[in-house]
Amino acid sequence: MPITLKASYFSANSPNSSSFHEDSLIEISDNGQITNIIHQTASEYSERLSAARQHDHLITLAPGHFLLPGFIDLHNHAPQWPQAGIALDRPLADWLNHYTFPLEARYADLDFATPVYQDLVTEMLANGTTTALYFGTIHNSANLRLAEICSQAGQRAFIGSVAMDNPDQTPDYYRDASPEEAINKTQTFVQAIQDTYRNGFIQPVITPRFIPSCTTETLQQLGQLAQSQHITVQTHCSESDWEHNYVRERYGHTDSEMLQSFGLLNQHSVLAHATQLTTTDQSIIKTEQAAIAHCPISNAYFGNGILPAHELLNQGIKIGLGSDIAGGYTPSLYANLQQAVTASQIRQDGVDATIAADQRGVANSRISAKQAFYMATVGGATSLGIQAGAIESGLLADFQIVQAPPRFASLTPDEQLEQLLFRHTRHQIKAVYVQGKLVHEKEHNWYE
Amino acid sequence: MPITLKASYFSANSPNSSSFHEDSLIEISDNGQITNIIHQTASEYSERLSAARQHDHLITLAPGHFLLPGFIDLHNHAPQWPQAGIALDRPLADWLNHYTFPLEARYADLDFATPVYQDLVTEMLANGTTTALYFGTIHNSANLRLAEICSQAGQRAFIGSVAMDNPDQTPDYYRDASPEEAINKTQTFVQAIQDTYRNGFIQPVITPRFIPSCTTETLQQLGQLAQSQHITVQTHCSESDWEHNYVRERYGHTDSEMLQSFGLLNQHSVLAHATQLTTTDQSIIKTEQAAIAHCPISNAYFGNGILPAHELLNQGIKIGLGSDIAGGYTPSLYANLQQAVTASQIRQDGVDATIAADQRGVANSRISAKQAFYMATVGGATSLGIQAGAIESGLLADFQIVQAPPRFASLTPDEQLEQLLFRHTRHQIKAVYVQGKLVHEKEHNWYE
Ligand SMILES: [Zn+2]
Ligand SMILES: [Zn+2]
Repeated sequence: MPITLKASYFSANSPNSSSFHEDSLIEISDNGQITNIIHQTASEYSERLSAARQHDHLITLAPGHFLLPGFIDLHNHAPQWPQAGIALDRPLADWLNHYTFPLEARYADLDFATPVYQDLVTEMLANGTTTALYFGTIHNSANLRLAEICSQAGQRAFIGSVAMDNPDQTPDYYRDASPEEAINKTQTFVQAIQDTYRNGFIQPVITPRFIPSCTTETLQQLGQLAQSQHITVQTHCSESDWEHNYVRERYGHTDSEMLQSFGLLNQHSVLAHATQLTTTDQSIIKTEQAAIAHCPISNAYFGNGILPAHELLNQGIKIGLGSDIAGGYTPSLYANLQQAVTASQIRQDGVDATIAADQRGVANSRISAKQAFYMATVGGATSLGIQAGAIESGLLADFQIVQAPPRFASLTPDEQLEQLLFRHTRHQIKAVYVQGKLVHEKEHNWYE
Repeated sequence: MPITLKASYFSANSPNSSSFHEDSLIEISDNGQITNIIHQTASEYSERLSAARQHDHLITLAPGHFLLPGFIDLHNHAPQWPQAGIALDRPLADWLNHYTFPLEARYADLDFATPVYQDLVTEMLANGTTTALYFGTIHNSANLRLAEICSQAGQRAFIGSVAMDNPDQTPDYYRDASPEEAINKTQTFVQAIQDTYRNGFIQPVITPRFIPSCTTETLQQLGQLAQSQHITVQTHCSESDWEHNYVRERYGHTDSEMLQSFGLLNQHSVLAHATQLTTTDQSIIKTEQAAIAHCPISNAYFGNGILPAHELLNQGIKIGLGSDIAGGYTPSLYANLQQAVTASQIRQDGVDATIAADQRGVANSRISAKQAFYMATVGGATSLGIQAGAIESGLLADFQIVQAPPRFASLTPDEQLEQLLFRHTRHQIKAVYVQGKLVHEKEHNWYE
């Protein structure tokens, strides 16, 4: 049944601009698309309002509630969910070998995988994340289970079967046995997802874990696969000093240069972290129209530097936000957009007060709440090439309905948006829609 | 009626150590003190358990729930609550003059003040904050109303009537008319609080806003008042480049040096921010046994540097956490302890990846989750000199009862604590006790 939402909403137009409309009518078709938005000032407003009422498909948001686009998480290791919040004080290599790889190895067991993936997907929807780009594990059975769970729960998902076959950088107990196995497994997974989810609600992603954990042969063949079938690619790129330098030592080139040469860098690629990019790397990423998954919480722990988000946005490089479960400790993209703003401020001001103020940080680094909101919504959608991320006619109806905190003084729309984003708590997300379907509802009091 | 809580709990012993006990019996007297803690290994355990059951004052936490000490917020501008989350991208002077001072001036009107203070105190208790050190406004009627609200809601509070009388740095519409007025108002407020709340549950605090907004005469006389009556002092100290340099230009000395000379620095003083301290300042603060309110979220926006929390803790300087509503955007001390750890990691690693890794940050800056937990609890209690902050016999029964996230893999107690602190959401705080009294309860399902 079509529905009409009568709602005040915020939506990002560009990194520096967002719009606010009060009590607009948002008409949604049976297949979950926004077919029309009628603002209060439009001549047909009262006619369309009556029509929706008459056909009993009007939903009016209760006072103090707002509609926002659903958030898009561009980097999330689903299997790491059980360790979220734990052991963040370890260096990356230690974190991988002592926590992450042993945990991921357990997903050979579907009985272990199933409840974890169910809990994660439920929790992400409750946090307003309507689309996610997931790393799975090396196990196709668990990866397909994750796909099933996302599909059933109604979360749009891009899922990768992780390829990692370099014996020097992966443990015996958790490794693809050979390049052939890594490639075959990837092909099988891609085919299975494409056969099962023909509407594209769940999509396969080519996923070399990162250059260190893959052999050159695997990287080359995955690149060919990505090119020939136009499939989305995800991997880590220049994520820390160690990782960035490892690739330079192995190949005499940076991550971005090597990913490009393997054919893994194109307009369907999402690169996680990228805190250590050179200016040449930035140009390569821009030229290839690849995207960056900015994971500000994770980067504070593992990134050895703060992403120059302001500079990258100004250059027109695609950039969205990632929770990086479990390098980041929370699935909330609200927490990540807050940290994106906070970290950018620290990048600008520097850390060490014993250094002269004008030498301490990097000028013009600060991003605004609006820029962070853009990254969490439109930036993510643009990176994945999906028709979502904004509240506009023709796009998919992916929404979150949030209750504002009590208001004691008048606020401009911009201030109201800032407060929605920064005073946020998870329990203020009252309902979540993906493609026009209600997929999470905390309480029934969000509509009249 | 006395109660016995049967609970698994975490409590900090020192900055680097916390203890975990499973299913202990915590006996609480009528007046809200922990009189005895009996661990499972004790010989009298089953006898005391039976006795509590028999007298019907046993409360057993439901599985998956834990007891933590209530958090202590060492810096909070109660009147700024309506602007929390707004306009954080403004420099401090602009923020004060265009947002904060006009807002604070409105507290001349009790009808404006009352609902704001009620909402803030309710929200803080729901976030597990059992004691707070508040800045009020220059208006004693509103400050006394805040005291009433805290008392009725059951939140232990230290409240300051703000003194600010320097015409150069305060607006006409929001200023004490003279040093006499600032001093008289402070004395009247101190007396009124001490007369009304004889048990010390609400305590007055001498509160020069910061050196820039006060005349020398007011600073001197407030110092004398603090010394003669042994009253807690709160102010801002070396909080930003601008503020730190303003004081050096006005007096030829730093904030810490001047506060010491005014008699405002002693074991009852709490200094907010302190990001710009010199090593001499650190020695002065240590010698005077004053405390630092570390406000990591606020500091990212206004501090122009990251507090060397690890170094200060190692020096044995008293340090607790502050939300700095509304320089910080959230009342949650969970969010602030997360940011304390995150910011310390950024301080260590630096911000600018174009600088060589070993030149980028400040070595040995990182603090652990445990150190942040210590600051939010014992550190705060030590700073204020209250018998709280830990779960120990003889201390006040200030608790929060939190539900852990679902567990999919076994965790050590340290990992469990990290996950409680970092995977936290407000709705996981199920109940809050202050001095043995239930002051917040989200749902009834936290006990058996
Ligand atoms: Zn990752
Ligand atoms: Zn302050």
